[in-house]
Amino acid sequence: MSKKTKVNAAILIIGNEILSGRTQDTNTSTLATWLNSIGVKVNEVRVIPDIEKKIIETLDVLRKTNNYVFTTGGIGPTHDDITAESVSKAFNLKYKIHEEGFKILEAYYKPGEFNEGRQKMIWMPENAKLILNPTSGAPGFSVENVFCLPGVPSILKSMLGGLKNEIVGGEPILSKTISLRTIESEIANSLTKVQDQNKDVEIGSYPFFQAGKLGVSIVIRSEDQSKIDNCNSQILEFVNQKKIEVVDR
Amino acid sequence: MSKKTKVNAAILIIGNEILSGRTQDTNTSTLATWLNSIGVKVNEVRVIPDIEKKIIETLDVLRKTNNYVFTTGGIGPTHDDITAESVSKAFNLKYKIHEEGFKILEAYYKPGEFNEGRQKMIWMPENAKLILNPTSGAPGFSVENVFCLPGVPSILKSMLGGLKNEIVGGEPILSKTISLRTIESEIANSLTKVQDQNKDVEIGSYPFFQAGKLGVSIVIRSEDQSKIDNCNSQILEFVNQKKIEVVDR
Repeated sequence: MSKKTKVNAAILIIGNEILSGRTQDTNTSTLATWLNSIGVKVNEVRVIPDIEKKIIETLDVLRKTNNYVFTTGGIGPTHDDITAESVSKAFNLKYKIHEEGFKILEAYYKPGEFNEGRQKMIWMPENAKLILNPTSGAPGFSVENVFCLPGVPSILKSMLGGLKNEIVGGEPILSKTISLRTIESEIANSLTKVQDQNKDVEIGSYPFFQAGKLGVSIVIRSEDQSKIDNCNSQILEFVNQKKIEVVDR
Repeated sequence: MSKKTKVNAAILIIGNEILSGRTQDTNTSTLATWLNSIGVKVNEVRVIPDIEKKIIETLDVLRKTNNYVFTTGGIGPTHDDITAESVSKAFNLKYKIHEEGFKILEAYYKPGEFNEGRQKMIWMPENAKLILNPTSGAPGFSVENVFCLPGVPSILKSMLGGLKNEIVGGEPILSKTISLRTIESEIANSLTKVQDQNKDVEIGSYPFFQAGKLGVSIVIRSEDQSKIDNCNSQILEFVNQKKIEVVDR
C-alpha cells in the first residue's frame, strides 16, 4: 500500500535575533507543518547566526544529507542580510543581479523607488530560480535543493503556495492524536508495550495543562493509516482497562 | 574595560513534536534570553528527533565546540524519553538510578505513588549532578558541560533560577534597540556605513508591522556600552538627517 518513498528536509533558520532570544521563531512550526502535509519529513532544524562561514559550512552539511533544505532569513536589503551571497559561495556561483527578479521589482515599485537598497534584494546566485512573493514583491530563490525564504513570518507563509509544485513529497505522514485525562507515569508501561509491538510507528507522549487540569496527548504517526488504526485500538484498550477518561480522540 | 571573556553555548531541542510542527518551541527563546542576561552567547540551536544515535552524534559535536550545551526534552517517564540514556552513552557512563534523585521523588510523591513509570525519571548517567525542579519534582541533571532540562516550558523556566550558580558567564551582552517609522531599504546604505565603522559591534535590522504601519527596529549588541552608545549616536545622526520618525529608543 505504501509507496515507501521517504523524502526529508532540513530547516536552517539564519538570524542573530533568534539566538539572542529577542525574536521567537515561528517559521519552523509553519514550515514543518506544511512540509509534513506534502509528505516531507523534517529531519533537523538548525538556528545559526548571520556569519558567512557558518552559513556556508552548515549548508554544505545539510544539503548533502537531506532531499531539501529550506532557509529562512537574511534576504532583505540591509548589511546583515547575507544569505544570498553565502549561498552563492556555498555553490561556487557568481553573486549577481537576477534579471527576471530585477524586472519584477522594477514593475512592483513606483518609478524612482527601486533604489540601491532595494536592488540588493535581487542580487542572487547566478541562475537561481525565483520563488515568487505575493506579499511584498521581493522574491526568494532556490539553487538545486536549497530554497531560500524570508524571515518575516507573514511573507514566508504567503510564498509557500507558489512553492508547492517545486517540492516532490513522499507518502504524506498521517497522524492521530488521543488526549487523555491522566499523567504520563500512569500509562508509561502500557504505552511502551504498544510501541514495542509497533516499532515502525512513531508514538509520542506529550503532557499538557488545560483548564487547570493535567492531561497527556498521545500522537501516533505513520505513512500507513492501518498501522495508525492498529496502534489506536491497542492504546484505547489499555485506556479502557485503566478507566482513564478520553478527552479527545 | 571589557574583560574580553567570551562564553558561549548551544541549545539542543530534542523532540519529534517540534519537527512535525505539532508543537511550537518556546524554550529556545526562554533559554537564549536567560543565557544572554548572564553573559553567555548562544552560538547555535539544533532541533533533532528522539533518535538515540542522532542525540549522541549531535552532543559529541556541540559539547566540544561550546562552553555549555543545554538540552530540552526527553527526560519524562515514557518510552520516547531517551535523553538520559543517550547522554549516558555519549559520555560512556553507566545509566542507573540516581540515589539522591530517588530520595527526592520518594519524598515528593505520596506513599505508593512512586511507581515504575516515575522511577524512570531518576535513571541518569552515573554521578550526574541534579538540577532541582521546584514545579513538579523530577529533577534535570548535568554531566560536565551538558545540562539536561525538561521540554515543558513552564517547568523549564522554573528550573533556571537554581541553575544560575552553575553557569559562569562572561561579560553580559548589552543591547540597545531603536525603532523607526521607515522601511529597511531607506536606511540600508547608511546602516551599512555605521556597521563598517564599528566592525566589532553586532548591528541587526528587523522590519516590523505595528498598528498597521511598517517600521524597522535596529538592534545594537556588544559587551561594551560605550561602543553601543557610539553606534547609537551615528544611527541617530542619519535618522535625523533623513527626517525619519523615531518610534522608540
